[in-house]
Parts: sequence; C-alpha cells; structure tokens
Amino acid sequence: MKQRPFTSSISVTDGALSEYDNHIVRRLSAMKGQYLDEPAYAAMLSQDPVLYEVYEIKRPESAGELMHGISIVHPGKVGDEYSMTKGHFHTVLDTAEVYYCLKGEGAMVMETPEGEWSVEELRPGRVLYVPPRWAHRSVNTALRGDLVTFFIYPGNAGHDYGTIEQQGFRKLVMEHDGRAQIIDNPRWRAREG
Amino acid sequence: MKQRPFTSSISVTDGALSEYDNHIVRRLSAMKGQYLDEPAYAAMLSQDPVLYEVYEIKRPESAGELMHGISIVHPGKVGDEYSMTKGHFHTVLDTAEVYYCLKGEGAMVMETPEGEWSVEELRPGRVLYVPPRWAHRSVNTALRGDLVTFFIYPGNAGHDYGTIEQQGFRKLVMEHDGRAQIIDNPRWRAREG
Repeated sequence: MKQRPFTSSISVTDGALSEYDNHIVRRLSAMKGQYLDEPAYAAMLSQDPVLYEVYEIKRPESAGELMHGISIVHPGKVGDEYSMTKGHFHTVLDTAEVYYCLKGEGAMVMETPEGEWSVEELRPGRVLYVPPRWAHRSVNTALRGDLVTFFIYPGNAGHDYGTIEQQGFRKLVMEHDGRAQIIDNPRWRAREG
Repeated sequence: MKQRPFTSSISVTDGALSEYDNHIVRRLSAMKGQYLDEPAYAAMLSQDPVLYEVYEIKRPESAGELMHGISIVHPGKVGDEYSMTKGHFHTVLDTAEVYYCLKGEGAMVMETPEGEWSVEELRPGRVLYVPPRWAHRSVNTALRGDLVTFFIYPGNAGHDYGTIEQQGFRKLVMEHDGRAQIIDNPRWRAREG
C-alpha cells in the first residue's frame, strides 16, 4: 500500500478506475434470497449474469484513512425487480459513506437497525450522504446503461453483509407501469431484540 | 444538521453545490506572507481579489462522519505564482482526504511534518489520495478557468492553518517560460524540534 500521495483516474464513459487493489465481480448467484421473484431468479441462474462490479483502492483499516472506488451496477431486472447490489451495514456502525453519481439513473435504498428507511434518487452530479448507522444498497433503475458511482468511506468501516442477507431491506425498488416504484418487502424481518 | 440520508448536486459548469452549510470566500488579503513576490502581493491588495471559494456540507465532528464539499480556485497569478489555497494540515494529523477533480487544471502541493514533499497534477476525472499526515494546498495552474474539486475528509479532522502560515510549503508552483514549474521555497522554515 502506498505511503505517499497518489492519484487514480476515473473514465466516466466506461466507469473504469485506472488503479485499483480489488475488483469485485458479483453475479446473480451471490444474491440468493434477495430478489422477491424466486422463479425468475431460478430461471436466470443458468446464465448467472454479472450484476455489478466494484473497483476499490484499499487503505489501512484505520479510522483516519479513506477507502474509495467505483461501483458499476449493470442494467437488468429479476422479475420486476431492478438490478442491485447486495447492500450492507458497516461493521463499525457509526461510519458514514459518501456517493457521487457519475453516470446512469438509480436509487439508494437505506435503513437503520431501528427500522427507519429512506430511498434517494441517484443521477449524474448528485452527491448522496449515507449517515452513520444506515445500511445501503444501490439499484439501477434504468434498463439501459450502467449506474456508476464514486464512493468514499472510512478505512475502519468494514462490511456486514450477513444482516441484510438474513433480513433483507424493508423496501424494494420494482418496475410497475413502466416506472420505478418503492414497495414494502413482504419478506422483511425485523431484527430480533 | 440532518439526521437522515440526504443529497446535494454539483453543477460542474460553475462548480456550484446545491446545498451547503458553509461558504468560505478567501481573498488575497487572507494570504499574507504566503506569496513569494511581496511587491506584487502588495500591489494587488487594493483590489483584494477573491482567490478561492469553498462550499462545505458540515457534519458532526466525529471520526465516522465525512465532511464534503466543493473547492473552487479562481485563475490568476501573484507575480509568477499561481492562485492557490492557504493550505493546511489536519488538526488530527492521522486523517486523510480524497479529492476528485471536476474541472480545470492544477496541482496539489503536499508535505509531511518530517519534510517529505509531493506535488500531484489535478485534471478532470483524476482522484487524489492525500494520506494521513500530509498538508495540502490546491494550485490553479491554468490562467483561464476555475480549478474545481470535490473533497471528502473525516469529520474529526479539523484544520491547522497556523503551521503553514508560519513555515510555508517547501515547494511553490510558479510560471516559468510559460509553464508551471515546481521550485524550492526560499523562505520555507523547517519545523522546530
């Protein structure tokens, strides 16, 4: 890991980052139990499309460092539900994240452990502040074109994927009547006690 | 201060941020002792031009929060030295900062308390990582057009302007033979002790 200042470059055209330490490629098969329409999910598994990719610059996992990189959510749907990331809480709950939308159209679905929720629209030029304690999932609501965001979060934040894998998000973003709508997730389970 | 997720929008055309808590306007008169050419500085004081502006979204000053905003360095020179920010260390030295250049051409001049230095070029699409412990100053090396950057740093970082006001930066960015060059600052004083 670099000890001195360094640069990387974002190509907004294709969402590429010129330097990265980690390239995560998430396929449909990594999203078991997250999409509401299970038959549609099962039918797509043989193809197992890539849903999203993350290019990340790693830093030491300490509070004063800043992890940063690019998230690319490819367009598509599973049933009526748009392509999305797994979503996660930070392991250190009291850590925020900043997103800057570079390309595409989408939404960030968020919630707290106490059950508050929020959905904010993403479009180029928009900055989103995800305060400490809010789980977050990016959704690509365009059926053409990637949703590309630049993200920054504290080095010590960590990722807790397990909580969302178990309980899901309270809200889903689905296509109804040709446009994105927020609906209650009928399978959402409140955290136990 | 907002408790829930929120968005703001950056207009890259004019570097405006749609929401902000703090608008800093820094004029030449705030830069006493920083520019090498003192007669040129003195001659410009009657006009006292605005050198740069910062639009900042404030967050609680705790380690897990992220301050963020837009910095706009207007073009110009004082003598042969380009328009620049005051520059600072973070009060909590072990905190980093991320810059994303949106517009213009420039450089980030950096140094550590131990006297290491670095100058990195800024241009649209470039991401700069300023690691913990590195003081930083933005310089607009274009004689036309603003240098616009989006910045993010930990909520507890704070600003130590005083150290740079006293000692300056080791390196200056000056125009020589029609292009930007890095020169030693003859007035730089190493930190005592």
